[in-house]
Parts: sequence; structure tokens; C-alpha cells
Amino acid sequence: LHVTTAAILSIGDELVLGQTADTNAAWLSDQLATRGILTAEHRTVGDDRGAVAAAIRELAASAGLLIITGGLGPTADDLTREALGDAAHPGESLVTDDGAIQHLARWFQRRGRTMPASNLRQAQRPRSARFLPNPRGTAPGLAVTLRETLIFALPGPPAEMQPMFLDAVVPHLPRSDDHVILTAAVNAFGFPEAEAAERLGDLMERDRNPLVGTTVSRGILRGRVRSTGSALEARAAMDAAIAAIERAWQPYVFGRDGESLQESAAGLLHRSGRSIAIAESCTGGQLGAMLADVPGISASFIGGWITYSNPMKESQLGVSAELLRQHGAVSVAAAAAMAAGARARSGADIALSITGIAGPEGGTPAKPVGTVFVGLIAGDDRDHPVVRRFQFSGDRASIRDRAAKSALQMLRWSLQGVAEDAPLLFEVRPAAVEAGR
Amino acid sequence: LHVTTAAILSIGDELVLGQTADTNAAWLSDQLATRGILTAEHRTVGDDRGAVAAAIRELAASAGLLIITGGLGPTADDLTREALGDAAHPGESLVTDDGAIQHLARWFQRRGRTMPASNLRQAQRPRSARFLPNPRGTAPGLAVTLRETLIFALPGPPAEMQPMFLDAVVPHLPRSDDHVILTAAVNAFGFPEAEAAERLGDLMERDRNPLVGTTVSRGILRGRVRSTGSALEARAAMDAAIAAIERAWQPYVFGRDGESLQESAAGLLHRSGRSIAIAESCTGGQLGAMLADVPGISASFIGGWITYSNPMKESQLGVSAELLRQHGAVSVAAAAAMAAGARARSGADIALSITGIAGPEGGTPAKPVGTVFVGLIAGDDRDHPVVRRFQFSGDRASIRDRAAKSALQMLRWSLQGVAEDAPLLFEVRPAAVEAGR
Repeated sequence: LHVTTAAILSIGDELVLGQTADTNAAWLSDQLATRGILTAEHRTVGDDRGAVAAAIRELAASAGLLIITGGLGPTADDLTREALGDAAHPGESLVTDDGAIQHLARWFQRRGRTMPASNLRQAQRPRSARFLPNPRGTAPGLAVTLRETLIFALPGPPAEMQPMFLDAVVPHLPRSDDHVILTAAVNAFGFPEAEAAERLGDLMERDRNPLVGTTVSRGILRGRVRSTGSALEARAAMDAAIAAIERAWQPYVFGRDGESLQESAAGLLHRSGRSIAIAESCTGGQLGAMLADVPGISASFIGGWITYSNPMKESQLGVSAELLRQHGAVSVAAAAAMAAGARARSGADIALSITGIAGPEGGTPAKPVGTVFVGLIAGDDRDHPVVRRFQFSGDRASIRDRAAKSALQMLRWSLQGVAEDAPLLFEVRPAAVEAGR
Repeated sequence: LHVTTAAILSIGDELVLGQTADTNAAWLSDQLATRGILTAEHRTVGDDRGAVAAAIRELAASAGLLIITGGLGPTADDLTREALGDAAHPGESLVTDDGAIQHLARWFQRRGRTMPASNLRQAQRPRSARFLPNPRGTAPGLAVTLRETLIFALPGPPAEMQPMFLDAVVPHLPRSDDHVILTAAVNAFGFPEAEAAERLGDLMERDRNPLVGTTVSRGILRGRVRSTGSALEARAAMDAAIAAIERAWQPYVFGRDGESLQESAAGLLHRSGRSIAIAESCTGGQLGAMLADVPGISASFIGGWITYSNPMKESQLGVSAELLRQHGAVSVAAAAAMAAGARARSGADIALSITGIAGPEGGTPAKPVGTVFVGLIAGDDRDHPVVRRFQFSGDRASIRDRAAKSALQMLRWSLQGVAEDAPLLFEVRPAAVEAGR
């Protein structure tokens, strides 16, 4: 069998009406991709026999492998068995499988329960289909071949679907070193997606292999690479493409695949042997929470202050009332003094501070909502704070998120010795414009 | 126009290959259902012009409303514009929209940036389409009518897609009072889902209208209600079901629909007129970040301390070295002393503290990973701290998340005057077991 493209069909009113988000399709596609099978389409339809049968027929006509999830339960709205029968043997009724009845009877017996009559529906199957055992629930899976297409119907709950896929579907998938699909991603922060694409130039042409694309989510840019070919060729081409993206996107690259910005920053911190303390105002603890995401961070992260109010900035970080009166709590001077206070009072090597206006209230013409100052004292020979000014757009959550991420990128650059003049997205220069007035 | 069924098409290699899970389709279907429009199908295809155009043609033939998300970015793999043109005007090339160019130019100008040439792609549209403005990003949406079907193409990022749907799509949707589908949810925290279902009893039978179901996500229980019928009937039945769930789930209920635990806690705080300060260890700032999620929290939230290390607990909160030596930093005594220190040093009316072992390292037989103490000084006549002990399961992120949420529920209960003996999920009693040894 030559399976190179797959389709995934998810069934359920709760999915198509949006009461539940489908996670099965993404999980299955990812599993298939690692085995060299490209998914061309996901489709979701409700608990409607005609719609399910039509979708099975259409998808089986275009894909070599069709995986269906859902609709195998015992209730009247579980119609995958009937629809699969309609698609495979139009006009014929389902047959009852003796082995499946025994499996169901044992399942209830082992739990000391009487099998409700409704569960007998789960022992029915299209004539040419065979059952896939379900050790974790009452819904058996089904496997059938329709013309050239392998079709597997699996239960909807991920805890039942995933093991059945691994146990009963994977052994039937073609494995070939002649044709694999490898995927990987490069992660970056701090410059615009359009510039990221321009820097990649013809790497992003649509007919290339490896295929390179970009996405952006919550400020994190990803350069996604998909490489197809023989195992050796695909790997070599993938490595070359990843290296090319990393070169093109410096100094903004912070990691690959699932690595987060905070994991990357924590790794650099750990290798530097230096400690850090933080002082947060508008982010309210978010920078600290991101650092604390990383296991083992306690070796570097001493702690910090959430100086949401001005009296806290004064009493806990030693920011002078005079400074706050003269420059305001959202200023170069305040960010610098917060970092200096955090460093002095914690004894940390490095201090990071954030102060800004997250909105929706509190903006002024000179400092509108989205104005954020990030201060950094790196703790080597440069005892003076570096302060960057940002003008973020978006809502309160977005402004705070980008502020914390910008602070982490400034920390990374400082630890890597990146020159201080690389701009960050939404940065406004000079930061100290207000001091010059 | 008679739109009764909708289809949703999501576009992106990262979606169809399973690198990212699609959340837009579920959100859109839910939004449509509340307006009486049933979604019949979700479909996802990759960044392939031919596949997208074919999907648009097929879905437009069967549905009265088609909503497309994704593929409107500035890069070469963003092909929704071209595919929509192929479907609407086969053989014709796209036209460039002067208004859209001006919008893009202003967008960049306002941010002090030069528009990269690649963004000009975003000003192209099929001849018969019109632009939908995007105040939150560079990707304008598109609207076009194909035969009888309304088609809207929206950007993929939810932060841009959702407001554009509400502003530019909803006004074009038909409204009918004869048959509506209303959905609502009751939110709760701190007790098990199985108990939640038992408390609902026959409210959860599958053939009822309204239909009631429960879900749980990151510890937050939701009782979901779907009510169908005429506008008046559906509303009355919905209100009755919501009230019944709220009665059954007290004192754990904190809000309805989209209201978060932190919004509910912040609302109670605000109405009480009291101020709060916090002291966090294992959560590293997450409790503060959750409070700071809520606009206007600065009226109540003074600030806090992230005392990740023991020296910070001593120097910044006045927790004695002797106490830490005798009881450890994860103890009833430490949680109580942290809360007392936070309250005394901030002058706040209320103080909350969290100390625990988030793992994966640091557990002991007496205090395994997942052990967390939450301290609360409520600041009325009860000056003594209340400390609850928890034994959370799950990974580091889950333990920290549940710890912060448990702290917020304790705060809510204190502000509402709920008796101190209501148990919270994963709570271990007595908290002071170690002191009794």
C-alpha cells in the first residue's frame, strides 16, 4: 500500500458547534508526520449519518489513509458505525460481531456492572470491517479498506483514541526510509514577521524542498521547516535549512522546536553562573512567573518585587519620592532606580525591571497606554542600567506579555554579549526622550 | 439572505500538520450558535492555493455562510487572497485596493516603522471582494458573496480574528426569534468533576432541553447549558438551568460564561474596599500576574514579594532564620510568617502567601512534590493567619496553577464570609500535621 497523504475526520455535535475544541486531529497529524505521512485535510461534521457517510466517501476518494474519531459510543447519536457501513456497503445493514459482544460483556463484568442494552450497539460493524480492541473503554475501533484507502475509526476520548492509534493503527502504516517527512522550527522574538520573511528571501518559495514558512503567536516568531525525501537527504536538507534560518534571524533567535524564551534565558543564566532579581510594576509578577516556569531556576532566580503601587516602589526598592514626582513611575529614571534597588537589596548579579501603562486606563498624550520601560543592570563591568522604551499595541494582556518577553530577550542579549544597539520590536528611541525636554 | 447553516475553513500548514491546534473553528461555531446559526462542518487545509480554492468552492456550495481564517499574512505562504479569487473569478488576477494601501501605510507610520514591500500583498483582493478593517494588525479581512453564500476571510491570530468577527461579520448575520440556540456556562473551582456531575443529578440527562454538560480545564469546572426554542422559551429555560447549577455547586461557583476566577476575586475585593498584598515562593509571581490581569486592580492590589530564595524570605518579609530552620520554607509556619510579613510591610488590609514544592526536584517523603501551603490574613477581626495545606498532582506548571487558583478561591471565600470548613480539592487536613509531631 502506498499511503502518502492522510485525511482526518472528527465527528460530534459538540465539536462542530464549538462547545468542545478538537485536539485529536492535531495530535494525529503530528503522529503521522513523524512517520512520513502528510495530512492534507481535517474535517469535522456533526452527529448526522448522511453527513458522516458523505464525508467518508469524499475523503476516501482523495486520501490513502483516513482516520475517523468519535461517534462510536453506545447512544443514539453515535452513528459512525452506520455511516461507515453506508459508505462501504450501501444498502446493507450492519452485522453483529460475537467477539465484540464477549469483549463488552467482560468489560462490564470486570467492573462489577451490568451491561446496559444500549451497549450492544457497540458490537455492530459493517460486514467487511474488523474490530480494534479498546482496553480503556467500551467503544471498539473499526478498520476497513475502501478501494485503495485504509480507514480506521477510533473512539473520541483522547485517553482511548491515542493508545488505540499506537497499538492498532501504527503497525499498519507503511514505514519507509525512502520517503519521510521531517518537521522542525526555529523560534525568535523581537522583530516583525514581514522582516523575518524578507530576511529568508527565496528560502520561502512555495515549490522548494525543504518548505519553509513562518507563523507568529503571542509575539513569538516561528520559522517552520518541512523536509521530505529519503531519511538521509531529508535530514541533511532540514539541518541546512534550520541553520540558514538561524543565520538570517540573528540576534533574535532563541531556540528550536518547543523551547520557550524563558527556557533559553534560564539556560544562558545557568551557564553564566550569575544570579538575578526582578522588579515588576505593570506586569504584576508575569516576568517572575515566566522565569519560575523553568525547572531548576532556583539556582539563578533569587526573587523579586511586585511594586504595583508607588509607596511599594519607595519603601521596598528605595526609589525616591522626588524621582517619582519629577519623572513619574513610568519613566527611564524609575525603571533604572527599580533595577538598582532590586539589585542592591537582593545582592543579585543581574536585575531586570519593568514599569509601564498596561491600560485600559492611565495613558497620557506623552505616555499613552502601551508605554513600557524595561531596565537592566547586567552586573559585569557595566554597573549603569540600560533602559529601553517600548510602545506596545494591543490589549492589557498583550502589552504585559510583550513587555515580559522583551525583558527576557534583553536579558539573553546581555548574557550573550550582543551589542546594545540591536532594536527590539515596538521599541522607541531614544528611551530618554522625556529627560531631554 | 437565509443563512441557517455555516461552514468554517481554517488554513495553514501548521494546523493541518498538527504543529498548532486550531482554536478558531470552535470559537466561531460557538459564536454562531448563540446567534441561531448551526455550523455543519469545519474543514482545515494547508497553505496550498489549489486545495484552498477547492475547499472554498465545495463549502460555498453547501453552506449559506462560510468563514475562513488564516492565510492573510504578508508572506508567500499566505494564499487565501489568491484562492478566494480563484473561487470567485477563475482566471482573473487580483486587484490592488487603494484604501487598504493607505490603511497599511498608516498602520506602520503610527508605529514609526517603514512598511516592508512584502506587506503590499495584503492590499490585494479579488475584484468583487471588499476589505474588512483590522485595527489590531496588518492583515485586512475580506468579504465576498459567491452565488448565495456569504464568505468572510479573517486573519488567523485570535486576537485579530475575534474582534473582526464581532465588528464586521456579526452585523451581517440574520437574526431570528423563532428558533435560537442559547449557550451559557457556570464556572466553579475547587471540587471534583465527578462530584459536580452527581450534584447535578438528572439535569444532565442527554434528551433534555436545555442540555447540560460539564467540562474541566486547568482545574476550572464549567457547567455548560445549551437551550433551544423560541427566543423567549429558550431564555427562560436557560435561566432556570443556570440557577439550578449555581445552587447545586455552591460555595465553589465563581462566575458565568467568560468570567475568570481572578476577575471574580478582584470584583469582591473592589466592593469590599480593602487592599491586598501577596508573598509568593513556588508560584514565582503567578498569583500577582493573575491579579494584574484584571483592569483597575491597582485600586486594591498594592504589590508583593517573590521570595524565591530563603534569604529573600528573611530579609524582605522578616521570616526568621530560626523558623525556616525548624519548620522549613514549605510549612504552615513559613506560610503564616510570609503573609504576616507581607501585610505588615505593605500596610495592606489582606495578605495572601504561597509556599510549596513545584518540582520536579525538591520533594521529600514528608513533603513530596506538589505540597503547597497557602496562607491568608483577612484583615478584619481575625488577625491570625488561616493556612491550608494542599497535595497537588501533575507537573510543575499544573501545581503552580492550582496553587494560585486555590489562593484566589480562599480569598473569595474570605471576602464572602464562607465558613472556613469548606474543603478545597487536593486539600490535606489538618494543615498543621507537622507541628503536631
